[in-house]
Amino acid sequence: MEETFVPFRGIKNDLRGRLFCYRQDWSGGFHAGNRILAPTTYIFFASAIPVISFGEQLERNTDGILTAVQTLASTFLCGTIHSIIGGQPLLILGVAEPTVLMYTFMYSFAKDRPDMDSKLFLAWAGWVCVWASLLLFLLAILGACSIINRFTRIAGELFGLLIALLFMQQAIRGLIDEFRIPNRENPKAIEYSLAWRFSNGMFAIVLSFGLLLTALGSRKARSWRYGTGWLRGFIADYGVPLMVLIWTGVSYMPSGSVPKVIPRRLSSPNPWSSGAYENWTVIKEMGNVPIVYIVGAFIPATMIAVLYYFDHSVASQLAQQKEFNLRKPSSFHYDLLLLGFLTLLCGLIGIPPSNGVIPQSPMHTKSLATLKHQLLRSRLVATAQNSMRQNASLGQLYGNMQEAYKQMQTPLIYQEQSVHGLRELKESTIQLASSMGNIDAPVDESVFDIEKEIDDLLPVEVKEQRLSNLLQSVMVGGCVAAMPFLRKIPTSVLWGYFAFMAIESLPGNQFWERILLLFTAPSRRFKVLEEHHASFVETVPFKTIAAFTIFQTAYLLVCFGLTWLPIAGVLFPLMIMLLVPVRQYVLPKLFKGAHLTDLDAADYEEYPAVPFEIATEIDAGVRRTYAESAEILNELVTRSRGEIKHMSSPKVTSTSGTPAADLRSRHSPQIMEKGYSPRMNDLRQGKSPTVSGRGKFSPGMGEARPSKLGDGVRGSTMK
Amino acid sequence: MEETFVPFRGIKNDLRGRLFCYRQDWSGGFHAGNRILAPTTYIFFASAIPVISFGEQLERNTDGILTAVQTLASTFLCGTIHSIIGGQPLLILGVAEPTVLMYTFMYSFAKDRPDMDSKLFLAWAGWVCVWASLLLFLLAILGACSIINRFTRIAGELFGLLIALLFMQQAIRGLIDEFRIPNRENPKAIEYSLAWRFSNGMFAIVLSFGLLLTALGSRKARSWRYGTGWLRGFIADYGVPLMVLIWTGVSYMPSGSVPKVIPRRLSSPNPWSSGAYENWTVIKEMGNVPIVYIVGAFIPATMIAVLYYFDHSVASQLAQQKEFNLRKPSSFHYDLLLLGFLTLLCGLIGIPPSNGVIPQSPMHTKSLATLKHQLLRSRLVATAQNSMRQNASLGQLYGNMQEAYKQMQTPLIYQEQSVHGLRELKESTIQLASSMGNIDAPVDESVFDIEKEIDDLLPVEVKEQRLSNLLQSVMVGGCVAAMPFLRKIPTSVLWGYFAFMAIESLPGNQFWERILLLFTAPSRRFKVLEEHHASFVETVPFKTIAAFTIFQTAYLLVCFGLTWLPIAGVLFPLMIMLLVPVRQYVLPKLFKGAHLTDLDAADYEEYPAVPFEIATEIDAGVRRTYAESAEILNELVTRSRGEIKHMSSPKVTSTSGTPAADLRSRHSPQIMEKGYSPRMNDLRQGKSPTVSGRGKFSPGMGEARPSKLGDGVRGSTMK
Repeated sequence: MEETFVPFRGIKNDLRGRLFCYRQDWSGGFHAGNRILAPTTYIFFASAIPVISFGEQLERNTDGILTAVQTLASTFLCGTIHSIIGGQPLLILGVAEPTVLMYTFMYSFAKDRPDMDSKLFLAWAGWVCVWASLLLFLLAILGACSIINRFTRIAGELFGLLIALLFMQQAIRGLIDEFRIPNRENPKAIEYSLAWRFSNGMFAIVLSFGLLLTALGSRKARSWRYGTGWLRGFIADYGVPLMVLIWTGVSYMPSGSVPKVIPRRLSSPNPWSSGAYENWTVIKEMGNVPIVYIVGAFIPATMIAVLYYFDHSVASQLAQQKEFNLRKPSSFHYDLLLLGFLTLLCGLIGIPPSNGVIPQSPMHTKSLATLKHQLLRSRLVATAQNSMRQNASLGQLYGNMQEAYKQMQTPLIYQEQSVHGLRELKESTIQLASSMGNIDAPVDESVFDIEKEIDDLLPVEVKEQRLSNLLQSVMVGGCVAAMPFLRKIPTSVLWGYFAFMAIESLPGNQFWERILLLFTAPSRRFKVLEEHHASFVETVPFKTIAAFTIFQTAYLLVCFGLTWLPIAGVLFPLMIMLLVPVRQYVLPKLFKGAHLTDLDAADYEEYPAVPFEIATEIDAGVRRTYAESAEILNELVTRSRGEIKHMSSPKVTSTSGTPAADLRSRHSPQIMEKGYSPRMNDLRQGKSPTVSGRGKFSPGMGEARPSKLGDGVRGSTMK
Repeated sequence: MEETFVPFRGIKNDLRGRLFCYRQDWSGGFHAGNRILAPTTYIFFASAIPVISFGEQLERNTDGILTAVQTLASTFLCGTIHSIIGGQPLLILGVAEPTVLMYTFMYSFAKDRPDMDSKLFLAWAGWVCVWASLLLFLLAILGACSIINRFTRIAGELFGLLIALLFMQQAIRGLIDEFRIPNRENPKAIEYSLAWRFSNGMFAIVLSFGLLLTALGSRKARSWRYGTGWLRGFIADYGVPLMVLIWTGVSYMPSGSVPKVIPRRLSSPNPWSSGAYENWTVIKEMGNVPIVYIVGAFIPATMIAVLYYFDHSVASQLAQQKEFNLRKPSSFHYDLLLLGFLTLLCGLIGIPPSNGVIPQSPMHTKSLATLKHQLLRSRLVATAQNSMRQNASLGQLYGNMQEAYKQMQTPLIYQEQSVHGLRELKESTIQLASSMGNIDAPVDESVFDIEKEIDDLLPVEVKEQRLSNLLQSVMVGGCVAAMPFLRKIPTSVLWGYFAFMAIESLPGNQFWERILLLFTAPSRRFKVLEEHHASFVETVPFKTIAAFTIFQTAYLLVCFGLTWLPIAGVLFPLMIMLLVPVRQYVLPKLFKGAHLTDLDAADYEEYPAVPFEIATEIDAGVRRTYAESAEILNELVTRSRGEIKHMSSPKVTSTSGTPAADLRSRHSPQIMEKGYSPRMNDLRQGKSPTVSGRGKFSPGMGEARPSKLGDGVRGSTMK
């Protein structure tokens, strides 16, 4: 993305880029068929549950003026609009914790003014939104998002981990509160006696840990050994909602003599109860707010604008990390503009506004990467099996597979990049086959291990489309109607789900992986290479990694501490923005440039531009027949958490002191010295690919692997 | 073992065999140094906790006449005597559930006789023990244990699984009882109100699942990535007691206003409380028992004798399974004789007798196998590292390692068998090295991967000695003195531990693995081969495996159902003894002989005898310096449960229709056909051993692996 501050240029570029692929955004989603429901449901739960919980929080803090009905309505409204006319459809919108904190603060301010009172609170909040939206328009038009490029990995990942910490904190706090008498309840009631509170707390521990452990377990279902493939796939895709259901069922197991409030459940009002819709007409009362407060509303508006600008952009950026190999352009400026409109809309109908949320947005992208991987695999597997059934030779087999792959790709990308990976593997395998004297013989499993080969072949690709986002928003809207059912969910299940979300957001966060590395026994550090694409372990001395990570951790803890301050806490994003100058001017003095590049590549300059060509992604491979044949291979799709553990191509930026070639040559001798033969060498030495098939890689293997989709792929057309 | 019914011959043979290696039984234990404490502590907990819990059960059922003090005393006394003068020191003695059931039945009988009353109960029980011991003497002298050979795998494993079921049942029952008002307590007390009972039950769930999950997790500590090797080793070795401590600590967390009985704790009396020792002088009262009851005591005595004969022998047999590659002789006859004496002794001092217990006995052997593996490894690793430091060539390196291995082996075994495994690997590696042109060059990691090579080199061997058994018995005795501390353990932690023991006893049980196989997706069945030595998966059709397993499961459920019958339940061993004729006469009509042999090798005839030569096991490798260097390698010692997953040599019996050579040739072509190159071929093709190093094996690999210690190794001298 170009760093431009010429008014409107960013928005124009974004619009042009996204309009170009708008049709494909929809057709791609529909082509995926039923399978789109898996990521949709997954992200719907990740989106709805916190929104409901924040709504409950807001209900307590605003004396019932705002409830889960309003937060759900806002998430539904903003999400639906964004999914249809928004720029980046990977971005998930929702009412977030900072919004709740701001509204809580605003309410306690308004309540104490005699000339405003809690009655005019929503009207005043409307004015705050008006100002905030104006500021957001300004930021969008002037291209403030350009500097998002300066938010390097260090900032994004620190923010991601901070959010995970906050989610975990919420889970723990919620669980502790289960032992306490809730506010606004009669402390003398029998069900709040010490014995029943203790019962409730212990039951809550059982329910929340039950949900957490089973939900985490269900995400690994694809690699289970037991059950049919269909069942395993179903559990992996829908395990989390299933577990919420099951543990809600468990919560009803105690017999009738146990008080009904044990365990405690959600307490949101039904949307059709009286007063639930008072807020919709708030625009009529906005004139009644005294002038001084209308002007004063500018102060919280600034805070909200800064917060939203930051949150929205970082959520969008984290949903588009380089590892995902996205192929459609970003849309920071236009999305911020749209956010301004949405904020205005929400303010005028008296509901709290939504913005881009973490960790849901990156979770969304990850789940779509899994989806795409499954689609590609099932297609290629079907092709390979067909070829083998027709006794094709190895050459024919690869020809057929290339053809199938080609059909599913954006033409340009395919010609320039992907064919490379396919050809390379083909050659080495043919070499192997010829050394065994059967180049023209029909292929059988001894030469071609379908599972392994295809899995190796596939780069990380994301099914970029709008359908999942739209569907999940609509489902969130459906929650308003389903409120009587939602109220059956125990609050303790929510806390378990919060912990689940915090843990789910950790893997893939390099900062987190570096923290773990600090606690890893020296003799086992090489294992990090096996599981993650962590080339820095080889190129950066451990002491430097440790120092960098400790610095980052200290910074994280300061940010976390800030959130505990009453009002200033909302401004912790400023601390994270401060990381930009720290990264640009301070860190280079403390660490070597090359090391910094490996630990935190700064995208201060652009990628070489590769224009985006309209894709005719033919997802014909999605037919049910393929699905079954692909079942055998499912296990490799999801290694540990339901998303792909494929290595992305080596992280190299064009500005760094070590260009790509340089970087590679830096690695290679090292590998050779150690005597580890990289994969290709192995093959040439006549090793059957089967044997080391699903074995772990030895150190250096990650690097030696050819990059299948280069770095230059992703970018916008509009440089 | 020879099937002989000549009086005294069995006992004489046993005595001769065990006396021959008696000195080494002790010296071997002492040479292991501190490390012996790990298996000792592990088995002490497995032994003491059920005994305490059975004591509590007995206390409730006998109105406090017998308590945990008596069961602990019996376990201590019998265990100590057996460990010193018993035959098979791998066998663990303890008061078991069937004994508790028998004593409960006997008490309720005695209590209802006006001329005996509960006062003469212990005296009468003494008479029962007198009769039972006479019967046991008879059985031992007449060589009844000879037919233990007819108890094939099917019977032993069925019994093992039945015990696991009973332990699990106890865990679940105990947990449910936590929600109920305990017997002999005032149901009106505030702490037994519904609210507090619910609290207690929920807290119990938290504590027992907490213990179960963390204890299971701690057993895998060696393969953790985090923490220092010392810490990981410590947790793996002492994790279970540590977790009992931790969860007992957690149980004290609720604040002061929660009633003290929540959670419920052990209620055994202190050994110094009045009346705790009344039973010791029971012999004086035995004359007061009316003659008719003295004679009538013969009936329960028969049941006890049958029970003990069976339990004791099967526990001993399961502790000496073929997979363990034991090298010292068995001692069924003599041990049964000793058991008779112990039963007599216990009866005369008024405590319930002990017998060999499952699953503790096989758990004991497994933990000693891990110990032995660690000792061997640390020695060989140190040798290899020394050689590499001195720039030794590959030839020298293997020479040195052979020398070190030799020093730690029984000379004869070494010469005949083990050298084979070492030589074979040596040759193939040298071949590889010479193909790379560096046969005489100093060895470096590229050629010789210490971790992997040594792990491959080591067969399963068990540290057979008496020290761990003696120490654990003494520690059980110490429990009597430590009763005030033991009473701090919540009962719910016990239930968690019961579940832990049930689960720990499952892996390695082929019956259990076959049950799992039934639920395994067809495409993943090959995975069973990777993790277990389950050659039957390749040689027996799946339908036959399924039919056989379903038959066995039905039989198991019948046995399990029998245990629910009031008194007849104690006689479920008869059902299992019935398996002998079923296996010998019925099963061969339903299944093919070859398949039966693969699923359940019947040892109706002997192994070729290999005389046991007195071992000069030099365990010099145990010094602390080695321990550290071996740390890097720890991870491979324990794959999943703290015991070794090494494949044992192929299961072949001399009587089966398919002799060893035949079996192998039956496998090999299959492997070749599939195009999987067995490991040795791989090496010859020039694959660096490192690359496929810790990879999973493809099907057939298990079979292709050379058997390092043949089948004929184990056996007795006295044929």
